[in-house]
Amino acid sequence: MSPSTSVPQSFRAIDVIRKKRDGIELSRAEIEGLVNAYTKGEIPDYQVSAWLMAVVLKGMTRPETAALTDAMLHSGDVLDLSSLPHKKVDKHSTGGVGDKTSLVLAPLAAAAGVAVPMISGRGLGHTGGTLDKLEAIPGFNVNLPVAEFRRVLDVCGCAMIGQTAEIAPADRKLYALRDVTGTVESPYLICASIMSKKLAEGIDALVLDVKTGSGAFMKSEADAIFLAELMVETGERMGKHVVALITDMDQPLGNMIGNALEVVEVVEVLRGAGPEDLRELCLELAGWMLHLGGVSKTVAEGKQQSAKLISSGAALERFRQMVELQGGDAGVIDDAKRLPQARHTTQVKSAKAGYLAAMQCEQIGTACVILGGGRERKEDSVDPAVGIVLQKKVGDRVAVGESIATIYYNAEAQAARAQQLIEASCTIADTAPAKRPLIHKVIGHKVIGKSGEKN
Amino acid sequence: MSPSTSVPQSFRAIDVIRKKRDGIELSRAEIEGLVNAYTKGEIPDYQVSAWLMAVVLKGMTRPETAALTDAMLHSGDVLDLSSLPHKKVDKHSTGGVGDKTSLVLAPLAAAAGVAVPMISGRGLGHTGGTLDKLEAIPGFNVNLPVAEFRRVLDVCGCAMIGQTAEIAPADRKLYALRDVTGTVESPYLICASIMSKKLAEGIDALVLDVKTGSGAFMKSEADAIFLAELMVETGERMGKHVVALITDMDQPLGNMIGNALEVVEVVEVLRGAGPEDLRELCLELAGWMLHLGGVSKTVAEGKQQSAKLISSGAALERFRQMVELQGGDAGVIDDAKRLPQARHTTQVKSAKAGYLAAMQCEQIGTACVILGGGRERKEDSVDPAVGIVLQKKVGDRVAVGESIATIYYNAEAQAARAQQLIEASCTIADTAPAKRPLIHKVIGHKVIGKSGEKN
Repeated sequence: MSPSTSVPQSFRAIDVIRKKRDGIELSRAEIEGLVNAYTKGEIPDYQVSAWLMAVVLKGMTRPETAALTDAMLHSGDVLDLSSLPHKKVDKHSTGGVGDKTSLVLAPLAAAAGVAVPMISGRGLGHTGGTLDKLEAIPGFNVNLPVAEFRRVLDVCGCAMIGQTAEIAPADRKLYALRDVTGTVESPYLICASIMSKKLAEGIDALVLDVKTGSGAFMKSEADAIFLAELMVETGERMGKHVVALITDMDQPLGNMIGNALEVVEVVEVLRGAGPEDLRELCLELAGWMLHLGGVSKTVAEGKQQSAKLISSGAALERFRQMVELQGGDAGVIDDAKRLPQARHTTQVKSAKAGYLAAMQCEQIGTACVILGGGRERKEDSVDPAVGIVLQKKVGDRVAVGESIATIYYNAEAQAARAQQLIEASCTIADTAPAKRPLIHKVIGHKVIGKSGEKN
Repeated sequence: MSPSTSVPQSFRAIDVIRKKRDGIELSRAEIEGLVNAYTKGEIPDYQVSAWLMAVVLKGMTRPETAALTDAMLHSGDVLDLSSLPHKKVDKHSTGGVGDKTSLVLAPLAAAAGVAVPMISGRGLGHTGGTLDKLEAIPGFNVNLPVAEFRRVLDVCGCAMIGQTAEIAPADRKLYALRDVTGTVESPYLICASIMSKKLAEGIDALVLDVKTGSGAFMKSEADAIFLAELMVETGERMGKHVVALITDMDQPLGNMIGNALEVVEVVEVLRGAGPEDLRELCLELAGWMLHLGGVSKTVAEGKQQSAKLISSGAALERFRQMVELQGGDAGVIDDAKRLPQARHTTQVKSAKAGYLAAMQCEQIGTACVILGGGRERKEDSVDPAVGIVLQKKVGDRVAVGESIATIYYNAEAQAARAQQLIEASCTIADTAPAKRPLIHKVIGHKVIGKSGEKN
């Protein structure tokens, strides 16, 4: 009856904002309308930021989350890799400290016959980023055009690049706005951001590594599980095979933190050595990638195959091939001295004897940022040479004066601050702490075996 | 310990947004920082709209609400009327249909020796606005410069103008943003918007008329009481005497709706006639204004004095004087034909016999907007001549074919739509409805007698 409702209305952002504010479920058309109009610049930032805050505080249903992911995915190009004979499987981690598994997994899964078209990000805040690690290898080019990306993928079964302007432009625009409006911390928005970019890779399946603990974005296991379930269901609603592993990030993964140092540790693992936790997590994730990629009947079989591809040297050879194809100096594999080297080292020594009972993992990541190995702001540049090598991990015995960590640095003042921070982040206790599992939980993966139709 | 906290930070909007998002109380400095930076254009709309949505969904404490009001108040000029010998008292209504009490109250309270520096607004949506009603009087100028406003106030004890650019510029900027971001509907933001503008008038006391019922913004009495308590406490925290009356807006106030028609009814009331509900509410509000203005010992005494000032003709004379001083044609008082006249009238007739049991009051207001008597958008112009005169009010007996209302119109199609809407808004029942009180509740007014220091 009222005049404002009798006139047929086109999409109005204000109505979508009000509905979300009032906790009413949005339709797919409303979410698509908002995302498309924003990507085209037809609605202003100030309306979208109000909507984002309403989403943060009111949440989203599963259909809304899937609709948002889908709209963001289709805001740009979706790679068509159907001409590749192999199944396309990627792995994505929610970010942690010392997490260099991607550099191991891409060549390892490729060596097993799974195609890995991996589009990664840079480090931000206390967490590292795959692109920064790759760029520690002199000459390695993460900015390949799509045609070149396909060629590398064709030749060696894996390729690793940064996000292109054509992939999910809505996510880039929304993320920049979320970053300055206090709307980053929403599992629904995080899910849509991750899944839209990953599904734009044209993959068949995805293994998610959702970190939990003091070095993760999701500190509590409950939050990690919530996000994992959301991402798995969103992927499944879009017809993909998705599994999420909730893995431990209560201390750094492996012993090395810092871009060049992490490349060293990647090569160690690909040689069949390296620290136990990193090696174990790589095999577990690889097992899932091989299983979802259809080259192993079970995850356990996938793990065995992966272990064999490491001991045979096939995985390392695949890594060497990828580095060369992407313009990098593969000589770093045999001679770590060809990687950028920090000028100085210093030790963090224990003031008491006992057991290393806990590490505030986020602070270890922040110490690496202070050294110049990470960035606080997106614009910051990164020093690939600096970092931290842990001599002790949680549960290890420590004597008075014994070294817990070695700091690799280029500036004295930064080293002093990092040293102080690492010291403060370590708790030495009289008794050994209870051991935390490396894999806390496996979530999802319901649609395996079904046809991958979109519902 | 972390590098981002070790560096001293100036005001950062993002931190204030995050705190409000997480439900943490903001300090006075944080709220002032946000309002001042926004008013100066130092922080962008998209950050403020995210913050506004967080306020809508997380609310504000009383100290936060007072700090926001204070920051908005001091974003512009505060009138200094201390040279006037009388106490300065204003009345503000949250808006309704047929609410023309301001035009009665300003001259009435002025005649009693209270100064009334009234800065009002225009109608928006289904509710009317004082400025539109005043402008129905040919020549009446609501855009007086501050010096002229003072002169009128000096000479006749009351003056009625629109908001100036100097008064609470933060509110103007914030309101424009709220209007397009779904953040209008928050009692905290409504309170700060109303109180910052009213306290900028340099008043000693304020009588609030908070409407409840189908024609009010706050449909439920609980919402009206919540807003009233918030405004009273905010005013008291700022050292002002404030009282709020929760009054009925479940049907239009008085019988006339439409700008020129309402001026006619104002003159009727000032002559001692006019409809009972309007007359009663004016006396009640005037009683409070006189009491808070220190010219009557009690509210009852203030009501009696007001009734006498009406029967003596003093209040009407004061109205005549104000109209003349503001450039209006005071001849409309004795000859209503000098007001803008609609070309046509038509009747809304009852299809059945019984009692008028209810009127959807918002729809009556909307019918007036359809006729051209109000505006849907701020830019719309208003036809002062059109409107509705009610022959029946809720509780009245109606015969079949008897007229419920007369529509004053200038365009046939609009009249037809208005007629349909008014018909649909009326419920005819076999029994008379329970009578709703005109004054539901009186709230606040704790600091009377105390000195008006600011705390």
